Amino acid sequence: MPVTLDITGKTRVFGIIADPIHHVRAPMVFNEMFERTGRDAIMVPLHVRPEQLPTAVEGFKAMPNFGGLCVTVPHKVEIMKLCDTLGEQGRLIGATNAVRFDPDGRMSGDMFDGKGFIAGMRCQGFEPAGKSVLQLGAGGAGRAIAFALASEGVSKLVIHNRTRDKAEELATAVKAAYPSVPVEAGDADPRGLEIIVNTTSLGLHDEDPLPMETGLISPEHLVAEIIMIPVETPLLKAAKAKGAQVHYGRHMLDEQITLIADYIGA
Amino acid sequence: MPVTLDITGKTRVFGIIADPIHHVRAPMVFNEMFERTGRDAIMVPLHVRPEQLPTAVEGFKAMPNFGGLCVTVPHKVEIMKLCDTLGEQGRLIGATNAVRFDPDGRMSGDMFDGKGFIAGMRCQGFEPAGKSVLQLGAGGAGRAIAFALASEGVSKLVIHNRTRDKAEELATAVKAAYPSVPVEAGDADPRGLEIIVNTTSLGLHDEDPLPMETGLISPEHLVAEIIMIPVETPLLKAAKAKGAQVHYGRHMLDEQITLIADYIGA
Repeated sequence: MPVTLDITGKTRVFGIIADPIHHVRAPMVFNEMFERTGRDAIMVPLHVRPEQLPTAVEGFKAMPNFGGLCVTVPHKVEIMKLCDTLGEQGRLIGATNAVRFDPDGRMSGDMFDGKGFIAGMRCQGFEPAGKSVLQLGAGGAGRAIAFALASEGVSKLVIHNRTRDKAEELATAVKAAYPSVPVEAGDADPRGLEIIVNTTSLGLHDEDPLPMETGLISPEHLVAEIIMIPVETPLLKAAKAKGAQVHYGRHMLDEQITLIADYIGA
Repeated sequence: MPVTLDITGKTRVFGIIADPIHHVRAPMVFNEMFERTGRDAIMVPLHVRPEQLPTAVEGFKAMPNFGGLCVTVPHKVEIMKLCDTLGEQGRLIGATNAVRFDPDGRMSGDMFDGKGFIAGMRCQGFEPAGKSVLQLGAGGAGRAIAFALASEGVSKLVIHNRTRDKAEELATAVKAAYPSVPVEAGDADPRGLEIIVNTTSLGLHDEDPLPMETGLISPEHLVAEIIMIPVETPLLKAAKAKGAQVHYGRHMLDEQITLIADYIGA
């Protein structure tokens, strides 16, 4: 996806840090967005090994036109220790995927996985506030989405995970942060719940089992994915067959890109 | 000059460091060249203040896919102190305008102004080796070009400068480095010399006086500029009117870009 860019001395520079770096997609998706929205900004891939993270960060801080970073594996947790301020979601989730360098020399970080999912729902006309949710999965993405759903004020959040302990642990953490939201670990039973969110990676590969038994999905349900490829996961196909509304995985990334670009000042 | 770029996780990243940064043109000219020659590389502007130079350099070294730098004001001299190895021209001139980060962690620097001028002459079919040269100016660019001309083995080099002492000083330094080359400070008298090179900035602005009295320019002379805009400086116009061959300023930059790109591994 080549992008037509007019990089001058006035262009603000942003990076994505990762190790390894070859697979990152952020330069493509951010630069496409910068071009489309007329932002004078560029995102470049920056290979940073774990032991070099503090040195690289000091270097970024030394450049006033270096605006911020996308942060991915293996730096999402470690970079928090270097931040001067942390957003609420980043602090609660215990990981950040975007960092901003402010003119006063301060470095701020936050996590946009959950916020991106919420914004993606809204851009499709689905409002999670006040709704009851069955969340499948309690891994990294699930953690971010559970805190974001609770922060938006869902009426109920049931977290199902293959390893029940992880679901219990996440439910306890979310409940502690948002005591007014009913959160519990539970079975993958969607009866009485309005939204189903798959935050597991099941559906990414052809041989994956379904992330839940789909027999109880009904036309009243909204079934949401965070998997982008394939577009139509087996779960979404089953949901459609049951007459349920579906929400595709790409909206989370699309909206997250805008949220992060605004946050890092692109 | 927008450039169509396909920046992925595999793209190697290069920077130009300067303070201020807004005016730099290297991102435009290098990215255009990277696109034209199919190099998977990108050059971005990086604003580094003098006191932050060592910190920024440590940061660059911390990123294995960050290949190198163009270096401009005010860092050309200071960055030499941070280099592990220096090219001959950089060492002699006492300034570097390109720096490379090698996989073994070493940082090498060199100066390409003079090499660019020589390569520019050659790309136009003019061979400076064995020729006698009148050089006008003994400033930064003049210093680089004088050492490069001597290094290429000109048969004679006469350096003229408004402040004679600066010409004497440069002639002495060049002679010390290349004892076999006759170098002297002298008048702007081209009689008996084959090539005239203007390394001053006279001709850049409308109101500038000519850098030399042009009455003695003859059809046997080659008159070379390093000023790019205007293309036809008053000196080149006068040289053409006298029937001399002329060499335009842009060739020095064009060839220098390729030399630097090869040096920094783009």
